[in-house]
Amino acid sequence: MKDDALHWEKLASEAGPELPLFRVRFDRMRHPTSAAEFQRMVLETTDWVNIVAITSDGLIVMVEQYRFGVGELTIEPAAGMIDPGEDSLDAAKRELAEETGFGKGNWRYLGSVQANPAIHDNLCHHWLVEGVEAMQAPAPDEGEAIRVHLMTLDDIREAIAVGKLKHPLGLSALSRVFPLWDLPYVPPAS
Amino acid sequence: MKDDALHWEKLASEAGPELPLFRVRFDRMRHPTSAAEFQRMVLETTDWVNIVAITSDGLIVMVEQYRFGVGELTIEPAAGMIDPGEDSLDAAKRELAEETGFGKGNWRYLGSVQANPAIHDNLCHHWLVEGVEAMQAPAPDEGEAIRVHLMTLDDIREAIAVGKLKHPLGLSALSRVFPLWDLPYVPPAS
Repeated sequence: MKDDALHWEKLASEAGPELPLFRVRFDRMRHPTSAAEFQRMVLETTDWVNIVAITSDGLIVMVEQYRFGVGELTIEPAAGMIDPGEDSLDAAKRELAEETGFGKGNWRYLGSVQANPAIHDNLCHHWLVEGVEAMQAPAPDEGEAIRVHLMTLDDIREAIAVGKLKHPLGLSALSRVFPLWDLPYVPPAS
Repeated sequence: MKDDALHWEKLASEAGPELPLFRVRFDRMRHPTSAAEFQRMVLETTDWVNIVAITSDGLIVMVEQYRFGVGELTIEPAAGMIDPGEDSLDAAKRELAEETGFGKGNWRYLGSVQANPAIHDNLCHHWLVEGVEAMQAPAPDEGEAIRVHLMTLDDIREAIAVGKLKHPLGLSALSRVFPLWDLPYVPPAS
């Protein structure tokens, strides 16, 4: 149902400059009430997945890696891009195996969030898998360097408190499984 | 402390194509163990804020707007970019006033998350304000069209269930204040 006060009209669309990871699209959009025209940018890409993986001992399988955007080491659940034609669950199983070497277990869908609805067109699908086992050595892409950590919930709360776990998509998946903080959250003094 | 197995070395850095919102930077990076070289893209921008605003009646002040990335109407907390030289709290008060007309109240910092550590260099700062009052008519930017909603926690849970609230940064802020779902979360069948 179209909401005349809020829905913008798309007047034209053209490709922007070539970038890695994203197809840049520029839309010419008409404001719903003023009719003024604005250019808006969309960074198109495929959907993403991330995985809350728990061993039969109740340890959570997390990955530590250097993240190029922030230039820091981070702790997150395993995650990645869905390949063309690939199913979300298959991508989740593949990324978990590649990044951590863990597999098997009972899989359950936790829903999705938008990557960022203001600029990206894609979703991030969250998966929970309980009872995973170490199946093989991790086999990350040649462009990745990853360390696997088996963490308790207290370890994860500590990683949040010291600022090593600040990925909104990782936190989104974990927050659908675990109580990550007491409410309302009080951040540590910095 | 440098972790030799995980820290990449930056060999060179250059500007990418001109884009709105972001400065595109290409880094030439050396893999920590294989020494292979890879180009990595960073989208540089200023920090963002979003605001969980609650009236003295316990209603949560939310905004509905068309989001250009996903091409849909979304429900989120008020949010925006910090202006050059602006303090995070001042930006939060300004964005709340512009987008909703609400102000005053008792402000508390809820901590920050990364926008997306893989590609962005910035943070999103979460603020909680309790006891806000309607002060003035909203005054959104000419490039925005926004409807204000006063919602109960049940309304917010419903917006999540029907897929109108899928912004990971909005959910991140709200999840530090409210129990958004029973754990582990079971998404509605689609």
